[in-house]
Amino acid sequence: MRETWHVNAAQDPVDENDRLHRLYGVGFEELQVPNPERRLFLSLERQVDLLELERLTTAVGWRPRPIRRVRRALCHSLLVVGVWCHDPLLPRLVGFARCIGDGVINATVWDVVIHPAYQGVGLGHGLMAFVVKQLQVMGVEQITLFADPGVIRFYQNQGWEVEPNNQRCCFWYAC
Amino acid sequence: MRETWHVNAAQDPVDENDRLHRLYGVGFEELQVPNPERRLFLSLERQVDLLELERLTTAVGWRPRPIRRVRRALCHSLLVVGVWCHDPLLPRLVGFARCIGDGVINATVWDVVIHPAYQGVGLGHGLMAFVVKQLQVMGVEQITLFADPGVIRFYQNQGWEVEPNNQRCCFWYAC
Repeated sequence: MRETWHVNAAQDPVDENDRLHRLYGVGFEELQVPNPERRLFLSLERQVDLLELERLTTAVGWRPRPIRRVRRALCHSLLVVGVWCHDPLLPRLVGFARCIGDGVINATVWDVVIHPAYQGVGLGHGLMAFVVKQLQVMGVEQITLFADPGVIRFYQNQGWEVEPNNQRCCFWYAC
Repeated sequence: MRETWHVNAAQDPVDENDRLHRLYGVGFEELQVPNPERRLFLSLERQVDLLELERLTTAVGWRPRPIRRVRRALCHSLLVVGVWCHDPLLPRLVGFARCIGDGVINATVWDVVIHPAYQGVGLGHGLMAFVVKQLQVMGVEQITLFADPGVIRFYQNQGWEVEPNNQRCCFWYAC
């Protein structure tokens, strides 16, 4: 009897939406992907496991960072977005981005990453569109990011301006 | 009798330090300037009057921004630094900078300004050195800023790297 109730509930779109809310929190969005058997979700609220995030960033070749520092950095970020490959019990983190900023005038996007196995199907584009939309809803005036040469065109195609007004970026690394 | 007490107090370095603390808060620093009759202080804690800040930014030709938004942006900044021309009753704001960031991995410096009447005596250099030191004390790994072409050399002379690793900056403006 209990089994039957579960099967019925899975077919009910209201219950399905409840379940997605429980997994991904308020304001989640589904990304459209070519493979109909995979569902991908953007979430602002689902907590990112830091070891899973490290596995993701290691998969794209970034050097590991101390977990304790990453935890603090995420706590003090303006926005933390996960891209999740849907699983009703344990979604898998396959993409990530975060922003620092004052939430009003300036925000800077950092740590944009999509797992190599999930690249090439528009997830990066969907992730960035979601990030920009969230910052615009906050009312942030100017969003900036630093891009490696290989991804300049990716951002330009989405409407980002490269070095407008001949501004240049400068970096200072703590030693 | 009371007058005499005041004169004595002014000559006491302990009382003088107390007075400066009351004006500029914890961690203030004095900037060395050529004119011995002027004293300039860097402060993290002295509250910046937003109309005075607007007068300062207008003096260097920046377009005005809504006071309400500037107030919120300052509230959510990681660091707000004022450069004050000392007056025992009412110090005058002659320089300013602020940072956004997570306080751990990334910080970006914005709104660096020195009043034109106070430029050319090293205040900008002193202000930036103070900002970098504060962020380093926090343990921030990477400090970034966007510089107009005319001030690239100013930052390079202080040890900033311009576009390291061929990174480029991209901007998105809310419309």
